[in-house]
Amino acid sequence: MNKFLILLIFFSCVLFSCDKKEKETNFIIVFVDDMGYGDLGSYGHPTIQTPNLDKMASEGQKWTQFYSASSVCTPSRAALLTGRLPIRNGMIGDEETSSRVLFPDSHYGLPSSEITIAEKLKEIGYKTAMVGKWHLGHKNEYLPLQHGFDYYYGIPYSNDMDRINGISCCPGSNYWKQYEMDEFNSKNYNVPLIEDYEIIERPVDQTTITKRYSEKAVEFIKKNKNDKFFLYLAHSLPHTPLYASKDFLGTSKAGLYGDVIEEIDYGMGLIIKELKKNNLDENTVVVFTSDNGPWLPFKTHSGTAGLLREGKGTTWEGGQRVPGIFWGQDIKSGVISDLGSTMDILPTFLEISNSTTIDDRILDGLSLKNTLHNLDKSERKKIIYYREREIYAIRHGDFKAHFITKGAYNYPKKTEKIILEKPLLYNLNIDPSEKFNVASENPEILKKIFKIKQDHENNLNAPENLLKHRGLK
Amino acid sequence: MNKFLILLIFFSCVLFSCDKKEKETNFIIVFVDDMGYGDLGSYGHPTIQTPNLDKMASEGQKWTQFYSASSVCTPSRAALLTGRLPIRNGMIGDEETSSRVLFPDSHYGLPSSEITIAEKLKEIGYKTAMVGKWHLGHKNEYLPLQHGFDYYYGIPYSNDMDRINGISCCPGSNYWKQYEMDEFNSKNYNVPLIEDYEIIERPVDQTTITKRYSEKAVEFIKKNKNDKFFLYLAHSLPHTPLYASKDFLGTSKAGLYGDVIEEIDYGMGLIIKELKKNNLDENTVVVFTSDNGPWLPFKTHSGTAGLLREGKGTTWEGGQRVPGIFWGQDIKSGVISDLGSTMDILPTFLEISNSTTIDDRILDGLSLKNTLHNLDKSERKKIIYYREREIYAIRHGDFKAHFITKGAYNYPKKTEKIILEKPLLYNLNIDPSEKFNVASENPEILKKIFKIKQDHENNLNAPENLLKHRGLK
Repeated sequence: MNKFLILLIFFSCVLFSCDKKEKETNFIIVFVDDMGYGDLGSYGHPTIQTPNLDKMASEGQKWTQFYSASSVCTPSRAALLTGRLPIRNGMIGDEETSSRVLFPDSHYGLPSSEITIAEKLKEIGYKTAMVGKWHLGHKNEYLPLQHGFDYYYGIPYSNDMDRINGISCCPGSNYWKQYEMDEFNSKNYNVPLIEDYEIIERPVDQTTITKRYSEKAVEFIKKNKNDKFFLYLAHSLPHTPLYASKDFLGTSKAGLYGDVIEEIDYGMGLIIKELKKNNLDENTVVVFTSDNGPWLPFKTHSGTAGLLREGKGTTWEGGQRVPGIFWGQDIKSGVISDLGSTMDILPTFLEISNSTTIDDRILDGLSLKNTLHNLDKSERKKIIYYREREIYAIRHGDFKAHFITKGAYNYPKKTEKIILEKPLLYNLNIDPSEKFNVASENPEILKKIFKIKQDHENNLNAPENLLKHRGLK
Repeated sequence: MNKFLILLIFFSCVLFSCDKKEKETNFIIVFVDDMGYGDLGSYGHPTIQTPNLDKMASEGQKWTQFYSASSVCTPSRAALLTGRLPIRNGMIGDEETSSRVLFPDSHYGLPSSEITIAEKLKEIGYKTAMVGKWHLGHKNEYLPLQHGFDYYYGIPYSNDMDRINGISCCPGSNYWKQYEMDEFNSKNYNVPLIEDYEIIERPVDQTTITKRYSEKAVEFIKKNKNDKFFLYLAHSLPHTPLYASKDFLGTSKAGLYGDVIEEIDYGMGLIIKELKKNNLDENTVVVFTSDNGPWLPFKTHSGTAGLLREGKGTTWEGGQRVPGIFWGQDIKSGVISDLGSTMDILPTFLEISNSTTIDDRILDGLSLKNTLHNLDKSERKKIIYYREREIYAIRHGDFKAHFITKGAYNYPKKTEKIILEKPLLYNLNIDPSEKFNVASENPEILKKIFKIKQDHENNLNAPENLLKHRGLK
């Protein structure tokens, strides 16, 4: 009987992969556009239903002080893929030229000298794919296939760019008029859908875009289930204008914005289901996060930063603190209120995959592996908040000092740039909404943060702003 | 072999209570004081750690549009225990006499003619106890033993009342001075601790009060494990001034307010543990909620309403929407974004316990049993927001109309009472932060809400305000 049992277990293992743990880790990043800190059920939204993401947050790790590296698209994406502040690779704008992100007439993109997560993982044999919004240069020489991805399916910049016969982008009454006119049809935005290097649809039908991205992601997993893989899925929504496929349109209690998030959540569910179906859930790490906070002037077409102050475009918490969910292989379940950054994803993946490190340049990311695997304290102790090429704020430990403040998009009202003679200081653990300035009581902390700022600036050597070059050459 | 198995199952059932389901349901309400909508991890707080409550929310039902019946203490508690709006039983103040709650010199309390949850359950054989803050009359004739409770252990009014040699209650710089002076010692608040009718400690040591309440609750469960029971545990914190026992003081990332909430959460864990130890978890229903929103002018000693507008004292969502967690017997797991009210707890418990209904008076509560047991749509379609004796707002379905607005406690600034000629209208499902007035676009909805208001007022016959009688007689 005992012998029989041992044999049974042995054969079961052979058949049902007891060796799962020895397989190498797959990686998936799901990056959403302009989703706020407060837009998921597990992060406090009352009416947007996100059961798949909430389940991942509860089975895995829900990070509550997780930051994108910028409050706008292009720099945030450059930082995610390179583990470096965008000031180090030219992917951040400046105030003088009013450049904040790349546009359809921009000349440049992420320099080829930069090293992305995809490049590093490809080096050690990973199959790599990017599905979704790129926004790091729309010309062939900057597209994902030039940056370590084997496959690309998506749009090259924001979904509101290249408006045909109308005013492109930006909030205001024009947006609502256009939106009404378009009747949930995206044909007036001349956005191309690209596969590898080829434009396969223009204007892209955005009503089905989320659905198609999710399907492409599932397809990639299915195709590469016997290999190790890295998938970067960057949804182009909930950036405005909003669209949902007919299965989701009008179904959320939270209106169209809710429809969009719930369709993304559904897609997340399909991905997890596909992983499980192929027994890949125990050797895959999935990260879900957002590129920046909610674009508030779009009102009910914007998300919410929850209890955080302001939103997209600003260096208040609502601009850069985003949901951060880690799920999968070896991730110990927990709520993590230590600091983390999208820039930490690169070094974390490199460590988990036993890739070589990058040591010929400064990385701003730090590996979170020990927190993910052992619930150790996070390595990260500071966040540097850049707006264009200036440091507006720095968080060190519990405290955040603001050196410069400025509103964004004149919403809710025009708020001028103020260079503060005496910085504002907030204890974010106690005062997450940045309401109670404690600068006078904490001169030592301010001094320490000043020192961090100086040290950082002294070692910066920032290259030129590549976002400012636009128009016909 | 088969016969043996059947016998084994039979004896296991005899020994390990397969008849569990046939036992009658126990009920526990945990009611906290001034805790905001956003103060639990599962409701979006980044640094307050509430693992026990979060687990209950995920195993049971997390209600995201759950309301207390008032934005201040006394009326909220009267409504909870009677299932009726406090305007129906005199337990609500008026503007002229500036009465909002009961004070140590108040003459009256909850009238004996009112029927409480405890009275109804006691009628059918339940053992009943109240632990914590009562605030429905401190004189013997109004104390819990007069209202259906077999046992009482707690304080009769708020923990800031009867300040010795100082200015009692209310926010402002005096609060902080006193707080510093007291050094986490509560001896300057002349609050009595009462057991049944007897004062057993005065001033009560508030630093251990949460701990003692939780222990009393556990003791009651242990003592009555072979009976059916109803326990009403009303923590006197996080109402200011804040205190935590030495095991919790200084341990939360979120400061003293976090310490307090985490001690309450810990106590919740002890209660669940005791239920499980006695195999009572499958025939007990536990409800956790708050009496009103956060007392914002206390700044870092206040909680947060998360994404909701304003807090305690107001009829904005932050004043009355609170966490609502249902856990235990037959509760189907889910996030419920339908409407619910603390007033619904009485009819729900009466239905589950097969008690007789109350039909000699108007009840405002509606049984939530079908939602709890089957995830059916909630019976509740409307919320009436009273401030003192006036209706300030009404929610019907998705929409809330404000007829009167007014700030509270002059915080963040003095906001006068405004009787709106044209009401404000918000779609709370889409706009939970009450930012975007949609009155002009929805005249029909406004008309319907007006009609609800008229019908309610026409059938009211409100008795006199019992809170206004104060001072020596």
